[in-house]
Amino acid sequence: MSDHVPSPEPAVTDGRLLRGARTRRTVTRHAVDVASLEGLEGLSFGRLATDLRVSKSGIQTLFRTKRDLHLATVETARELFVDAVVRPAKAAPAGGARLRSLIEHWIDYAEKPLFAGGCFWAATLPEFDSRPGPVRDALARQRRQWLSLLAEEVRLASDAGEIAPLDPGLAAFQTDAVLNATNTALRLGERGATVRARRVIDGMLTRPA
Amino acid sequence: MSDHVPSPEPAVTDGRLLRGARTRRTVTRHAVDVASLEGLEGLSFGRLATDLRVSKSGIQTLFRTKRDLHLATVETARELFVDAVVRPAKAAPAGGARLRSLIEHWIDYAEKPLFAGGCFWAATLPEFDSRPGPVRDALARQRRQWLSLLAEEVRLASDAGEIAPLDPGLAAFQTDAVLNATNTALRLGERGATVRARRVIDGMLTRPA
Repeated sequence: MSDHVPSPEPAVTDGRLLRGARTRRTVTRHAVDVASLEGLEGLSFGRLATDLRVSKSGIQTLFRTKRDLHLATVETARELFVDAVVRPAKAAPAGGARLRSLIEHWIDYAEKPLFAGGCFWAATLPEFDSRPGPVRDALARQRRQWLSLLAEEVRLASDAGEIAPLDPGLAAFQTDAVLNATNTALRLGERGATVRARRVIDGMLTRPA
Repeated sequence: MSDHVPSPEPAVTDGRLLRGARTRRTVTRHAVDVASLEGLEGLSFGRLATDLRVSKSGIQTLFRTKRDLHLATVETARELFVDAVVRPAKAAPAGGARLRSLIEHWIDYAEKPLFAGGCFWAATLPEFDSRPGPVRDALARQRRQWLSLLAEEVRLASDAGEIAPLDPGLAAFQTDAVLNATNTALRLGERGATVRARRVIDGMLTRPA
């Protein structure tokens, strides 16, 4: 932001920066909703300006390029996901309890849903997984972080005998696969989608290897 | 087609119909590739005309509306999927062998890939699952057909003792979830994605309930 707001007077600058940061946050929060429904390609400066009743040039000044808008949206989605799913689960003891808390918070996140179109990555990874570039890299990195987080709790839970002795990487992959499929089922209005998710994941975690 | 091609002379009409049907097939086959990469919203009459070096008005005459183009594309994807995955698996005996053949052909379908951007439904369901209408209905129907097919083979295999005694609906859902996640992993260039898929699915099908 600093290169957009030259600062003759610190007080004014702070105010402008704050307003800029607030606007930026308002825009990216809305952009996450739009992208969860229509994908990142559903985002344009004009569309966001119309939706939010702000000037297109104002939004353009904040983000400059569509790619920067995409990257800022992806980062906002990550922060909101961390707040809704990862951070609350940290309250539970590491291992089985935290693993189950992560899964429950994920199901809430998709069911509520936190974003208008359900899971942000379920909407944007299929859109960008064939397009090399920084947006795909950011989405893939976030996916790896999420899978690593799951795998680490599986490893601890498995070592402590709180769940079946599972391969952490495989179990994390499988859990994530079921959660994503549950997001699709929820979007399609399938009854019992979350009950099924819990049954399947319980079965996976408790069955002997 | 018949209302687009008035028929004074049957011979000429047949020729025109044939050419129309061929063009239609050429267009939808390409459209499936584009949609697998960019989603159905990536399709426009102009884009397809440019890609295929035919006239935009010709394509417009064949499909009339974008929705009709989407529906024709979805149907072509289904036919090609049936030819590549479902039909060859019918050669295997019903039950465990056919289930494993369906899974192997699916992995081939995603890995090869049959469509430029990998699995067609992995790309289009997340795009349309929040948009009620005939396109979403068609995609959801195809998804249900695929899950039913898997569930039926799980039921037969399970009853025959060829695999673990599993709930057919849950096991079908879980298998499909892992296949979709494998498609994403393949698109992101993750090593060992198909090896992992086979290990996870083998584990699911052979473990005691």
